[in-house]
Amino acid sequence: MTLTLPVLAPPDLTALPGLTAALAARAAEHDHAASFPHEGVELVHRAGLLTATVHPRHGGSGAQLADTVRILRALGEGDPAVALVTAMTLFTHAAQARAPHWPEQPLAELLAESAERPVLLNALRVEPELGSPVRGGLPATTAQLRNGQWELTGRKIFSTGAVALRWMLVWARTDEPEPRVGFFLVRADRPGLTIEPTWDHLGLRASRSDDVLLDAVRVPYEHTALLAAPGADGGRDATAGAWNSLGLTALYLGVARAAQHWLTGFLHERVPTALGVPLAGLPRFQSAVGEIDIALSGAERLVGALAAAVDAGEPGAAEESAGAKLLGTRAAIDAVQQAVALVGNHGLTRRHPLQRHLRDVLCSRVHTPQDDTLLLAHGRAALHRTTTNALAPKGI
Amino acid sequence: MTLTLPVLAPPDLTALPGLTAALAARAAEHDHAASFPHEGVELVHRAGLLTATVHPRHGGSGAQLADTVRILRALGEGDPAVALVTAMTLFTHAAQARAPHWPEQPLAELLAESAERPVLLNALRVEPELGSPVRGGLPATTAQLRNGQWELTGRKIFSTGAVALRWMLVWARTDEPEPRVGFFLVRADRPGLTIEPTWDHLGLRASRSDDVLLDAVRVPYEHTALLAAPGADGGRDATAGAWNSLGLTALYLGVARAAQHWLTGFLHERVPTALGVPLAGLPRFQSAVGEIDIALSGAERLVGALAAAVDAGEPGAAEESAGAKLLGTRAAIDAVQQAVALVGNHGLTRRHPLQRHLRDVLCSRVHTPQDDTLLLAHGRAALHRTTTNALAPKGI
Amino acid sequence: MTLTLPVLAPPDLTALPGLTAALAARAAEHDHAASFPHEGVELVHRAGLLTATVHPRHGGSGAQLADTVRILRALGEGDPAVALVTAMTLFTHAAQARAPHWPEQPLAELLAESAERPVLLNALRVEPELGSPVRGGLPATTAQLRNGQWELTGRKIFSTGAVALRWMLVWARTDEPEPRVGFFLVRADRPGLTIEPTWDHLGLRASRSDDVLLDAVRVPYEHTALLAAPGADGGRDATAGAWNSLGLTALYLGVARAAQHWLTGFLHERVPTALGVPLAGLPRFQSAVGEIDIALSGAERLVGALAAAVDAGEPGAAEESAGAKLLGTRAAIDAVQQAVALVGNHGLTRRHPLQRHLRDVLCSRVHTPQDDTLLLAHGRAALHRTTTNALAPKGI
Amino acid sequence: MTLTLPVLAPPDLTALPGLTAALAARAAEHDHAASFPHEGVELVHRAGLLTATVHPRHGGSGAQLADTVRILRALGEGDPAVALVTAMTLFTHAAQARAPHWPEQPLAELLAESAERPVLLNALRVEPELGSPVRGGLPATTAQLRNGQWELTGRKIFSTGAVALRWMLVWARTDEPEPRVGFFLVRADRPGLTIEPTWDHLGLRASRSDDVLLDAVRVPYEHTALLAAPGADGGRDATAGAWNSLGLTALYLGVARAAQHWLTGFLHERVPTALGVPLAGLPRFQSAVGEIDIALSGAERLVGALAAAVDAGEPGAAEESAGAKLLGTRAAIDAVQQAVALVGNHGLTRRHPLQRHLRDVLCSRVHTPQDDTLLLAHGRAALHRTTTNALAPKGI
Repeated sequence: MTLTLPVLAPPDLTALPGLTAALAARAAEHDHAASFPHEGVELVHRAGLLTATVHPRHGGSGAQLADTVRILRALGEGDPAVALVTAMTLFTHAAQARAPHWPEQPLAELLAESAERPVLLNALRVEPELGSPVRGGLPATTAQLRNGQWELTGRKIFSTGAVALRWMLVWARTDEPEPRVGFFLVRADRPGLTIEPTWDHLGLRASRSDDVLLDAVRVPYEHTALLAAPGADGGRDATAGAWNSLGLTALYLGVARAAQHWLTGFLHERVPTALGVPLAGLPRFQSAVGEIDIALSGAERLVGALAAAVDAGEPGAAEESAGAKLLGTRAAIDAVQQAVALVGNHGLTRRHPLQRHLRDVLCSRVHTPQDDTLLLAHGRAALHRTTTNALAPKGI
Repeated sequence: MTLTLPVLAPPDLTALPGLTAALAARAAEHDHAASFPHEGVELVHRAGLLTATVHPRHGGSGAQLADTVRILRALGEGDPAVALVTAMTLFTHAAQARAPHWPEQPLAELLAESAERPVLLNALRVEPELGSPVRGGLPATTAQLRNGQWELTGRKIFSTGAVALRWMLVWARTDEPEPRVGFFLVRADRPGLTIEPTWDHLGLRASRSDDVLLDAVRVPYEHTALLAAPGADGGRDATAGAWNSLGLTALYLGVARAAQHWLTGFLHERVPTALGVPLAGLPRFQSAVGEIDIALSGAERLVGALAAAVDAGEPGAAEESAGAKLLGTRAAIDAVQQAVALVGNHGLTRRHPLQRHLRDVLCSRVHTPQDDTLLLAHGRAALHRTTTNALAPKGI
Repeated sequence: MTLTLPVLAPPDLTALPGLTAALAARAAEHDHAASFPHEGVELVHRAGLLTATVHPRHGGSGAQLADTVRILRALGEGDPAVALVTAMTLFTHAAQARAPHWPEQPLAELLAESAERPVLLNALRVEPELGSPVRGGLPATTAQLRNGQWELTGRKIFSTGAVALRWMLVWARTDEPEPRVGFFLVRADRPGLTIEPTWDHLGLRASRSDDVLLDAVRVPYEHTALLAAPGADGGRDATAGAWNSLGLTALYLGVARAAQHWLTGFLHERVPTALGVPLAGLPRFQSAVGEIDIALSGAERLVGALAAAVDAGEPGAAEESAGAKLLGTRAAIDAVQQAVALVGNHGLTRRHPLQRHLRDVLCSRVHTPQDDTLLLAHGRAALHRTTTNALAPKGI
Repeated sequence: MTLTLPVLAPPDLTALPGLTAALAARAAEHDHAASFPHEGVELVHRAGLLTATVHPRHGGSGAQLADTVRILRALGEGDPAVALVTAMTLFTHAAQARAPHWPEQPLAELLAESAERPVLLNALRVEPELGSPVRGGLPATTAQLRNGQWELTGRKIFSTGAVALRWMLVWARTDEPEPRVGFFLVRADRPGLTIEPTWDHLGLRASRSDDVLLDAVRVPYEHTALLAAPGADGGRDATAGAWNSLGLTALYLGVARAAQHWLTGFLHERVPTALGVPLAGLPRFQSAVGEIDIALSGAERLVGALAAAVDAGEPGAAEESAGAKLLGTRAAIDAVQQAVALVGNHGLTRRHPLQRHLRDVLCSRVHTPQDDTLLLAHGRAALHRTTTNALAPKGI
């Protein structure tokens, strides 16, 4: 079969500043109502950004990780909920671009629709019983073969953007004698699929990372990807890890920049009676802004450089990305916390966005890989590298 | 006049690992005796590294900042005293390469000699009365015109490598009615020039950053550079600042890597009786090594990426370098301090190098620009940039 | 006139554990609705705690600061909003106990009513124009003498517990030719007094620290306290400062203990599938709980010891209290932030109280004296003390 | 037998300021030469401080822990090496006071001599093979019964004050069929006992914590203490732990105060040309001194309050002491590191004492109990306490 694929609109990176502002204009409202920012996703789609990473062979532009981190930082500064569902969609397209694994039919359907309207994708992995599957273990969600179709049953939690997803890549196991594990490609309008609005979080409230319930949801036999014996990586190779780590870090650095921009605007506008000049004129505040700006600039430079290195296939660059997530999300969290500490009540009142940025940025730590896991893994790797190091001490 | 210049040996970057090891082998001895590592400098010269940044028009290879940070990190890991005098020499050649400002005769002499043997250069700026001249103020060292020659009188402190320098670029003012300020190019063997061995520091003891006394030292009239009315920058433009900030940060990241390597070797070798396995097998130590390795990898990536951006002339990259110095030297200091805290008495005994690395790395903060100064400057710049920011809050 | 005063019920400190539990049972609900916890205040009253610091000469028990910090820590652990209005009431009674300054009539009325039902008191100082008055400046709220009565007009912000206060001590200036400044004792049911529900904060939502508007509110001529020429301290002596600093720090240490208790309960109950034992069995979590417990125990011991020293009139103890606020509130904030970082999504979901404790504890920094102010003041005092120190260096 | 005991001179706490100054006057010299400060110990003896904790039943004054921390802080500020050997002597006398365990004859000899001249005592526990015995394991040093006497053979490391000790309490095991473990009381002038000058440390150089070699050193049969089956605590009960933790923490807080005093003196004296006023006049330095002073005041208050609570037998106070060591030594280390960072080269030059204070204070972490051990122990205890806590979360 030869697919007739639409040509997707190329991503317009010059639209980013305007998008940041447009998303920011409604972010507080969506946060307050915990409502999904459909119109924000529409704007991202119109700028061609939602399909930026689709491979040219599929009619896309094949944007790489370096462009992706630029996009996610700008969107994250505007509304991190929009940025997060965009990220999941871009990561999924990029994985497909690196190593095609979707069957032709759903892929063609997905691409055709993506040319017309916003099509959001996400892999649903997490389940209540497991913690996160990257820590090991088989999924409880099960695919049973009935009359030549799979029937999927289970519950997925923390399903970002659930109410707005078009396709869900449901991580599940088969009930075959020797069970296989992989993704089942589920269109969100399938009977038996329900979304439970369980998401009630401190931050990223508009991301609606709700529960998805699957009750014998039928999936055509061939609509699977990466189905294999347990122990396979489910697409979690080092490059996919780098996209995830660097992309999400960029997103939260955007949140921290939003906090910085609010802070500096506040310091310019605020003129205490006793002082007679704006707070921006005081060395104490200048130094504090210096701390924040230097930390964020450094983290952005690190993330950008590493993304370019991953794109260039530099050996070891992908493996370095989890560490950059640790450094970058710490920098983002610290920056917002410093801003909050700096401005007292003004940073905590809900009339101002700073407290929202704080609530949002705290979510950065929660994404896989989490700090404890990656510290152990990096430490073991570093210890392994130096086993034979010539400078090692002798005769202690 | 047309100079007949020697062709300088090209820098051999493949020699770096061997150089690191050779310098490390004698670093403890020089630290203990506070003796200058002449033989280490000789090794750097033989690998063509001491003249790596000489411009091709002057017979050199024209290495840029990206190569320079690679060199300085490797040398710093071996012996930071050797690295520091190498840095000063490389920075001086690089400034000359970017904008030639030495008169022909001393330049020719310098280059001819550099082809034959190690020729160390350094700018002597700091004086007892001033603190550091970058904080403002005219130098007290004075050049008097006598019989067509300058006579230089004054005292310079913290003159790194003083005993081994061949040329000193002495920052001084003329005693003219309208005084000019700039560099006077002084060969170290001139009568009237004395070195006082005042350097007795906690760290970088082998750098011999002694006092240089000038008592009517004669300098040919034309042997000056950048002589101009006060207020000129004395070559301290943003690019020179970037070389200084990134080069020195790389050097101290090398020190921190030396500390890490000793630590990991120790953890592999140390098998407590009660434990029965090496400390390297304990999660607590693995995580701690992970922290150190991630911090140093991130800082190295940041410094390397920024150096490449400076080389490429990316707007704003040079200005970002002072911030990278803050982040990089903090990462280096923190890493060594964590290593020390981790291994108890073993980290503090003088039989092991870790305490030396700690003493050395603490010197990283002392180099210009210092943290307080650069934080203020960055903060002011960041506040200035956002004066008109569209996201700034209204009506607080 | 001789007052006939009721005998107030003595405070029952044995009731504290039960009170903590009772307040905790409804804290989430009040936080969510941002509703004032009237029934919680009623419980505090019934245990005799709301008048614990009334002087025996006024029929009270004369509890000192050491008991007050015990009370506020226990209440803060249950519901910091209840604790905060209790604190303001206890501080006001204690100031009156140390140096009687209320006129007899309102005092008698206050005490008679306090024996019957919860009577909440608070000093209203902060105004929109000023920042906080402790940073200098006259209040904009003005008292005009009309027909032998004062008429108060102005706006007070951050008026903790406004909807539930019985007496407000309104900080204002007179419109006399030489204006005086002091407190005007205003019963909250006076005509012209309105409460604007402006309080919409990240934390301490139930404290209802709303705006109070005064529009020509009449106050009997003698119903003032500490009315004096500008520059007088308005009762802000070192002892009052110590009560404020240590009392509020204790309150927020209670919040942090609530966070710790939730955390340890969670670690006992949570048994990841892959692990098979509770998280409480892992050294990583044990060490982290150790950090939190040690920090909070140390801060509690510090606050308790300093409170006892203030009660004993130890010279310098009161002056040390602002520093203890810095250390204690930092310990509280850090402890809760560490707990949040430790448990990922569970710490951020609004189903669990940890995120509420985080939001609440962040308010600790906002109370006067704020960190920047007290650091400067302490530093100046420390520098002053050592001006003549015998160990000072010579001849630098 | 009835002992005829001398009356020991009572400790003169009013001598402490003078002692601090006298010790400080020679501390640099002893640090530089790594020489033991015999004359400093003599001064401590003359003030009656070396026997301050001897029980009244033994002719002493029975000073408790609260006085001991006062003494050790003052001595630590002058010379921590003198303070450390004093600490070991005071701890040994105090243990004897709490629960007499020395045989009469050596005790009488010890006390008689202590009345006449400085008599230093120390328990020698650490051995090369073990790490520290508190981490478990039998000592390798062995006592063999030969002709009614013990013969001790082994090597003890980190034996503080070895060259100046009069009695060593050597932790060893017997070679009996069922080995016992305990202290053997060894006079330092016994044949077969040699001191190897192995101590070459970054800090506390004058403490001469050398190796002690025992080669068949004879000890009278009854000159033992706490000899018992393995598993007994060797006097390491909670109260002894509290003396050790709080006493040593006080000592290092003294070091940090010495650093603060040098810093403030420097800030008063240093007048940069460009500034025209002392650095002490700048808010940046004032705030930094405020940080240091608040941290140290808080730690001193904590240590003092806990010492008094231990003396009063308050339940749980002794168990809290290890946590106070963590907080107090961190405060001390941080304070000195901040001072170093604040003054650039001046903090690192060996002409000034600040770098010595840094080297000394880093030794605070090395004393038992070390941070990792005590964090785990505290965390486990805290988790155990809350197993049944009423506020624990349900149904997660």
